[in-house]
Amino acid sequence: MTSDSPGDRVHFMRRALELAQRGNWTTTPNPRVGCVLVQSGRIVGEGWHERAGEPHAEVHALRGAGAQARGATAFVTLEPCSHRGRTPPCANALIEAGIARVVVAMEDPNPRVAGQGLARLRAAGIDVEVGVEARAAAELNPGFTLRMTEGRPWIRAKLALSLDGRSALGNGVSQWITGLEARTEGHRWRACSCAVATGGGTIRQDDPALTVRAVETTRQPQRLVLDPRLETPATAQVLKTGGQSWFYCIDPAPSERQRALEAAGGKVVPLPVSSMGRVDLRALVRAWGGLELNEVLLEAGPHLTGALLEAGLVDEVLIFQAPLLLGEGALGAVNWSRPLSSLAQGKVLEVEERRVLGRDWLIRARVRGSGTCLPE
Amino acid sequence: MTSDSPGDRVHFMRRALELAQRGNWTTTPNPRVGCVLVQSGRIVGEGWHERAGEPHAEVHALRGAGAQARGATAFVTLEPCSHRGRTPPCANALIEAGIARVVVAMEDPNPRVAGQGLARLRAAGIDVEVGVEARAAAELNPGFTLRMTEGRPWIRAKLALSLDGRSALGNGVSQWITGLEARTEGHRWRACSCAVATGGGTIRQDDPALTVRAVETTRQPQRLVLDPRLETPATAQVLKTGGQSWFYCIDPAPSERQRALEAAGGKVVPLPVSSMGRVDLRALVRAWGGLELNEVLLEAGPHLTGALLEAGLVDEVLIFQAPLLLGEGALGAVNWSRPLSSLAQGKVLEVEERRVLGRDWLIRARVRGSGTCLPE
Repeated sequence: MTSDSPGDRVHFMRRALELAQRGNWTTTPNPRVGCVLVQSGRIVGEGWHERAGEPHAEVHALRGAGAQARGATAFVTLEPCSHRGRTPPCANALIEAGIARVVVAMEDPNPRVAGQGLARLRAAGIDVEVGVEARAAAELNPGFTLRMTEGRPWIRAKLALSLDGRSALGNGVSQWITGLEARTEGHRWRACSCAVATGGGTIRQDDPALTVRAVETTRQPQRLVLDPRLETPATAQVLKTGGQSWFYCIDPAPSERQRALEAAGGKVVPLPVSSMGRVDLRALVRAWGGLELNEVLLEAGPHLTGALLEAGLVDEVLIFQAPLLLGEGALGAVNWSRPLSSLAQGKVLEVEERRVLGRDWLIRARVRGSGTCLPE
Repeated sequence: MTSDSPGDRVHFMRRALELAQRGNWTTTPNPRVGCVLVQSGRIVGEGWHERAGEPHAEVHALRGAGAQARGATAFVTLEPCSHRGRTPPCANALIEAGIARVVVAMEDPNPRVAGQGLARLRAAGIDVEVGVEARAAAELNPGFTLRMTEGRPWIRAKLALSLDGRSALGNGVSQWITGLEARTEGHRWRACSCAVATGGGTIRQDDPALTVRAVETTRQPQRLVLDPRLETPATAQVLKTGGQSWFYCIDPAPSERQRALEAAGGKVVPLPVSSMGRVDLRALVRAWGGLELNEVLLEAGPHLTGALLEAGLVDEVLIFQAPLLLGEGALGAVNWSRPLSSLAQGKVLEVEERRVLGRDWLIRARVRGSGTCLPE
């Protein structure tokens, strides 16, 4: 097998993508990146980025290849960096190791890189190709890409629904619409998210901890609570365990409540109001971007979920669907600010995956018109 | 291959089941039945029941086998009949042809047969075995079985819903939530149903014809309209085309409206009211049983669908699910007469099938606690 046929290029890039995924739970705020070094059609070095501040994928692969790196082809899922961040630039490391050719899945959307890494490689006489498995590479880092291009994280809304779209009974009972496997899968998505977001109403109604419990994790997601009037009690579960909790309220923050939440370990962020008299949702998600959050899992009630969907700020939905009919009178999934007058005003989903989880199903879908940084 | 190993028995019975399905659209009020005659491990005759009044499956198979029927084993999906109906009893025909052994998937639930066919075969010295592929055989004729045991048809509710369970916008717009493939599949289910049922509200709102159009059919289903006060206009589409239309109202029927509907070709059936002051739904479905309807496709709004579900009278649901979010304010799938106070009061569905239909999905499921005539 040589590294020159299109089939081989895809083969080696897929291996690099596989390696990159090992960083799924740990690389943030950095992107997930994998690298494979190929010499005469044989893999001589592999690496992936594990944690911010630690070596990048290319460096791991070069270490593994040693002298065999000279004249090899490097397959990297993302353009090698050209700037000195917490570690030296990878483009230089590839040049110094005598790599002959670099195949890259996608350019780095980071404006500090944006083609400069590729330019440096080319200037050093290295043959560079871009775009192999570009879509898969973009999907590996939707949040990093969106944050670099639009300054906000990738927002993934989780909904646990009956087949007739009900998320809770009229009396608020929602534990548990879905079964154990679905709930465990929900924790897996929390584990690979930088933060879990919800509304103050959900905190007061259910008092969830929003931590990862059902699966192993090396870190707990931060918690983001949209709580316009800071009504969260200082005894709330989100303040007790796990990563940092942030409370977003209308500016100015009620100072006594702010002090109480901060005394309990929370951080309060006052935000401007929109013309509707509500917290400006664009300011909210930009604030999340400012925290270097790549992927946010939204586990909110129908009002906040609906408002973010309406604003085009939900990129993906995870619908955990239970084989139940709960009927009208029970709570829905999504509330709009005004009723729809035509079907075309509904949100169209592009289903990416349907998967059995015990007696339930997971439907993962992109929201058409959102997250446009990714190829369709 | 001999017909005596368990694997062979299943093999030949499955062939008989396959043959039986060819009658899917035509046999009513009779059940779908298939028959295979096997001599020394080889099929020598095949038959299926095509239409009421015409020969049964066994007779077709015997004709095909001719002299080879002597000493053969007959595989029949349903107990051979022992009574003279529109055709002579099949048990006699099998005896006269010299069949040595009869393998039957299930006993005939028809109380006029109920084991008598098998008894007659045994009395003639024929070796009889019952229960091979019993579940598949029962599922072939859910409506016939239910009608024979409980006096009502199998009721299959069709719902076309967004992923958040909405069947129409608040302004009534519902055309079309699902795509062409899903709507065509809906016509296929109409074609194999004896009747399509709906409520007067749906007739007045949408004026549907409820006929089979998108697929070929040899007959149009009858139309059943629950219209308590006979408010259907005589110009309604259901009166213009297709099979007989029936209107079920509160007894006594308003005579002027009754005359108008009858003049337009409809038939009016007054029914007793329940303690709730509504048409007694058990009387309604018994009336449908009286029409010898085996399978009824319910295409109704959330109130009638919910009322029949609550009464335990919906046996199966066909949910055509579109990848859309339509949000609250839009119409739901199912209304109960009172709100649920615990999740255990919801209707649990046993999903039988999930299938892609273009961009939509079909979820076919049994309603737990209904249609108990079939094995779980």
